[in-house]
Amino acid sequence: MVYRRLGNSGLHVSALGLGGWLTFGGQVGNDITLACLKQAYDCGINFFDTAENYTGGQSEVAMGLAIKKLGWNRNDIVISTKINWGGANGEVLVNNHGLSRKHIIEGLRASLKRLDLAYVDIVYAHRPDRLTPMEEVVRAFNHVIEIKGWAMYWGTSEWSADEIAEACGIAKQLGLIAPVVEQPFYNLLHRKKVEGEFQRLYSRFGLGLTTYSPLKFGLLSGKYNDSPDAPPPGSRFAKGDDKFISYMRDNYGKKGWQEDIEKVRKIKVIADKVGIPQSELALAWCLKNPNVSSVITGASRPEQIVENVKALKSLDKLTPEIMAEIDDVVGAVELDPARQD
Amino acid sequence: MVYRRLGNSGLHVSALGLGGWLTFGGQVGNDITLACLKQAYDCGINFFDTAENYTGGQSEVAMGLAIKKLGWNRNDIVISTKINWGGANGEVLVNNHGLSRKHIIEGLRASLKRLDLAYVDIVYAHRPDRLTPMEEVVRAFNHVIEIKGWAMYWGTSEWSADEIAEACGIAKQLGLIAPVVEQPFYNLLHRKKVEGEFQRLYSRFGLGLTTYSPLKFGLLSGKYNDSPDAPPPGSRFAKGDDKFISYMRDNYGKKGWQEDIEKVRKIKVIADKVGIPQSELALAWCLKNPNVSSVITGASRPEQIVENVKALKSLDKLTPEIMAEIDDVVGAVELDPARQD
Amino acid sequence: MVYRRLGNSGLHVSALGLGGWLTFGGQVGNDITLACLKQAYDCGINFFDTAENYTGGQSEVAMGLAIKKLGWNRNDIVISTKINWGGANGEVLVNNHGLSRKHIIEGLRASLKRLDLAYVDIVYAHRPDRLTPMEEVVRAFNHVIEIKGWAMYWGTSEWSADEIAEACGIAKQLGLIAPVVEQPFYNLLHRKKVEGEFQRLYSRFGLGLTTYSPLKFGLLSGKYNDSPDAPPPGSRFAKGDDKFISYMRDNYGKKGWQEDIEKVRKIKVIADKVGIPQSELALAWCLKNPNVSSVITGASRPEQIVENVKALKSLDKLTPEIMAEIDDVVGAVELDPARQD
Amino acid sequence: MVYRRLGNSGLHVSALGLGGWLTFGGQVGNDITLACLKQAYDCGINFFDTAENYTGGQSEVAMGLAIKKLGWNRNDIVISTKINWGGANGEVLVNNHGLSRKHIIEGLRASLKRLDLAYVDIVYAHRPDRLTPMEEVVRAFNHVIEIKGWAMYWGTSEWSADEIAEACGIAKQLGLIAPVVEQPFYNLLHRKKVEGEFQRLYSRFGLGLTTYSPLKFGLLSGKYNDSPDAPPPGSRFAKGDDKFISYMRDNYGKKGWQEDIEKVRKIKVIADKVGIPQSELALAWCLKNPNVSSVITGASRPEQIVENVKALKSLDKLTPEIMAEIDDVVGAVELDPARQD
Repeated sequence: MVYRRLGNSGLHVSALGLGGWLTFGGQVGNDITLACLKQAYDCGINFFDTAENYTGGQSEVAMGLAIKKLGWNRNDIVISTKINWGGANGEVLVNNHGLSRKHIIEGLRASLKRLDLAYVDIVYAHRPDRLTPMEEVVRAFNHVIEIKGWAMYWGTSEWSADEIAEACGIAKQLGLIAPVVEQPFYNLLHRKKVEGEFQRLYSRFGLGLTTYSPLKFGLLSGKYNDSPDAPPPGSRFAKGDDKFISYMRDNYGKKGWQEDIEKVRKIKVIADKVGIPQSELALAWCLKNPNVSSVITGASRPEQIVENVKALKSLDKLTPEIMAEIDDVVGAVELDPARQD
Repeated sequence: MVYRRLGNSGLHVSALGLGGWLTFGGQVGNDITLACLKQAYDCGINFFDTAENYTGGQSEVAMGLAIKKLGWNRNDIVISTKINWGGANGEVLVNNHGLSRKHIIEGLRASLKRLDLAYVDIVYAHRPDRLTPMEEVVRAFNHVIEIKGWAMYWGTSEWSADEIAEACGIAKQLGLIAPVVEQPFYNLLHRKKVEGEFQRLYSRFGLGLTTYSPLKFGLLSGKYNDSPDAPPPGSRFAKGDDKFISYMRDNYGKKGWQEDIEKVRKIKVIADKVGIPQSELALAWCLKNPNVSSVITGASRPEQIVENVKALKSLDKLTPEIMAEIDDVVGAVELDPARQD
Repeated sequence: MVYRRLGNSGLHVSALGLGGWLTFGGQVGNDITLACLKQAYDCGINFFDTAENYTGGQSEVAMGLAIKKLGWNRNDIVISTKINWGGANGEVLVNNHGLSRKHIIEGLRASLKRLDLAYVDIVYAHRPDRLTPMEEVVRAFNHVIEIKGWAMYWGTSEWSADEIAEACGIAKQLGLIAPVVEQPFYNLLHRKKVEGEFQRLYSRFGLGLTTYSPLKFGLLSGKYNDSPDAPPPGSRFAKGDDKFISYMRDNYGKKGWQEDIEKVRKIKVIADKVGIPQSELALAWCLKNPNVSSVITGASRPEQIVENVKALKSLDKLTPEIMAEIDDVVGAVELDPARQD
Repeated sequence: MVYRRLGNSGLHVSALGLGGWLTFGGQVGNDITLACLKQAYDCGINFFDTAENYTGGQSEVAMGLAIKKLGWNRNDIVISTKINWGGANGEVLVNNHGLSRKHIIEGLRASLKRLDLAYVDIVYAHRPDRLTPMEEVVRAFNHVIEIKGWAMYWGTSEWSADEIAEACGIAKQLGLIAPVVEQPFYNLLHRKKVEGEFQRLYSRFGLGLTTYSPLKFGLLSGKYNDSPDAPPPGSRFAKGDDKFISYMRDNYGKKGWQEDIEKVRKIKVIADKVGIPQSELALAWCLKNPNVSSVITGASRPEQIVENVKALKSLDKLTPEIMAEIDDVVGAVELDPARQD
């Protein structure tokens, strides 16, 4: 395994992480959750990601249970959760979501109880909350880190570049701890935000990235290439009632989807040339970005983890020439000029 | 015993300290550890030094055990440990070393558990960690002092002058507690860093020093003078598999070693003239430096401590004339001029 | 010409600068000064360096006169001077040197009068002043920049790493402008301070470098190679009564000098292999260091400037292999490890 | 001449200064003022002290006139004035005295006009103003230094220890410039405040001292020893209508006066033993105090200055034994213990 610094912090995370979204506490049972975590750890993965709202809090419960059973040394693993986006238990009340001081403190306390842990290593603001003043958000995350000791670092997820810059500026002004990491959606089909909008955040604020959905929910594995109109039976989008899955199912086969599939087919040609599976190429491509600290992957079977880890061996196969071919397919992101004369 | 202020802090430490490196929890058993600590205390030594990685954490265990058995008043002693340099138990994992917020907090928590103490008096950053931002380091040491109450003061060990200045500057900027002490290697054969590179830190930042290896692992006692090629049987460098001891054994008799022995022989002539043993002179010489708060000594027998304490009576014998003779042998450190006209 | 940012500032300086030390206002007359400045400008050099004490202030007078006659657009050039090291007019009085608030303000006012300029772009603290508190120094440079408008940026010259770190820390603490550049002695024979002692300052404080004496006063041109005992008649060290030149003359042919000449002879072999003059290699080598914003050169004839500028074309000839050969001759500087495990 | 740093600042002042109180612009004419200043300068004195209220502003006028006529290099001299204690022209209005922002700015502007200078080096708050908030005082002195450029440093005169500590604390809190010097009354007969009350200010705040009245208006010269009841005709206290002189005349021969004369007579015995005049001993005694940057002397004839400067040669004659004898006469000041156990 390769370990990378989480942005400009002193924390080191495995370049591949394991996330509990949709799977642990949801689509798979506790036995499989434990098997997956064990497999990940044996592969050198030290970074495990969840959130207060994944499957209504059950993701935290299932992962906490597995961690306890596995008897890991707490110092040796990096656990993250996220606060904001919908309350646990699926029940949305007036103040159990968002980034008010009240919910950040109450939310993280409840997360730790479900995880049965004294602290997480990283707590993310899961989506921005534009109704809460940024100063309140920054102060509340500092409170849970500095006074409560419930987290070591804080980050953001799916924030805009200017919101991250604002949070960092307020932290500096007040002598408080700034967010060190953003968790964005990032893969071959969605690179504009990470490479374009965020381009200056890495050096200016020392921002790290833990990215999610490297395969865009399986699309980049190529498994939907031959089912243009409806999800193949048994696939993730054919079943399940998660809000997100419903959204994907509803868009299946529509215009954006077709354009994606078109690109995925062209990527397949490149993957064949390189001699690695399409999904391995997609994962390795994310890892080539030096601003990415960790690519969070999901798994509903331990073998998937073993497969994913192979991507680390393929980084050298993505030569500048191959990277340029990929750019031709998915579109390169043009950087802003340093000066405009 | 003489007590000195720890730099510009309010803490007073005995001018001689007792350290657990290599010995306690390692080369000597628990009975001898206890006997040494008792002897030290009876001689007026109040400062006891260890580290998370000394003999894989066993130094802390052994010293904690002895302290408990001796039933000392906690208020009456000064205990220090160090975080960073390699994990306890000899096992180096991804995040159980370095100076990340995670390791400073987790490491000190584990140290206190091994020591079976509620807090140490001084926690050192054992070597710098150039992969962790200085702000994260300063904040984390403040967290364990201010919020956790796990330490009274913090210091550094084997840092460079610019790193200490940077840490002090950040502490001032953020209104946080700055390091008050550095623990360097300092003896007759190695004075350049302490007297040269560090020369401005004492008055500008109120830095104190707790120095280690006053005899350069026995070299300055003269006991290797007549064994030019290989360590005499039974000596420290002849046995043991500690990483550090191996390194010394490998260099035994080589160029730098021979140069050292040459100087040690000349020092012997001066010691004879003064009428004290060579090792007593070497210890007393360290204590003559007013920037040294405490000289940390090691001991594998209680009698050694009694011998060491004699050095305090010899300070007056090191007259300016004798100090100048010593300078002629080991080389004086030239100070930077105040102004250059 | 290549332009580089002055450290982490927004100012751009030509990678080669022209300095007035010893020459302008001293060894050469006003006509040659003007011809040199014109030649430099025509080569694309935009950075001109002087100091209050160069030839007792006459360097500033001569350069100011030339700049006025040449009728350059002030916005197009970067002028620097230095305050501290001995008073102008050769007359050293109680308060007309050092870095007291009084002398920084009075000294720069006098420099501007001699230069006949409203402001310089960079004002350097020419050597540290260890009798003046760093806070007074930082505040005074901010005063001449912020309130008086007499300079755009400030820097240091021949300071130690801890002093630069201290100044930056105090500037941050007080919300003031930190020094952006250091001007050190740097060449093939003297690289330890710039590459070793300063190694952390570049990324941590955004420090830039404008280096002086790339040829060590001509030594690296090889012109003293065949005169081992005394300077050849007509050479710089044979004539002149400047304090510095006298010092060099006194050391001519002594131990350190002989060691230098030995290295210079070996460098000649490498330069021949690369196919460029020795002095061009020496200049290009300085420019290879990415932390160097500008290499300040001297000239007593316009043709020398044309020669110097050729070094910029030779950067690619200094391949990693050639750089390694040079390291073998002059000794590479070992960097401090990021972590010590 | 000997030069000393003004407290912890970078400014250097001659150990003897020349003040204009009562004399320049008052008791002596412009010719003598000029002759005295010239004599002082020729003796190496670089520090000249006045105040807005000395002889109703005429002291500043006379000294400014002399400085202009003498054509000194402004950089080479240190000029101080004082604001607060009664307005110039003898006319006391509502807002032309005290330390309000209004009077500090208006008062210093008027002083500079009388002195015909662009700035003074030191501006003192002449006595505290307990009706003005300390923050207003600190801010106003910073305004005239930083924004107006009317002074290089600021100090206090006849403030209490706690008031100086308060001003320094407010300056630190607000990131402003703290006072660097206090001007107290200090001589053999009045040492309690400087050595007792102020004892911690020197190291904690870097406070310097410019002391006045080293001879207590002539008393310590012994010239009143033989006139127990009334001032001898022609002496300073026999004539003049200055408020202060009247006060001294009224107390002539009373109880405190008699006690003083008693001590002065005993001091004479010691001076005779040492072999120097009594007044020389009194001056030298002030200079022995390392916290004194400069002893301000007055003069109504140039020869007095030559006499005073001789005191600098007598410092070594005041051996520890002689200093102890002096203590026996005037009473030593006991220092507060470091700790009280």
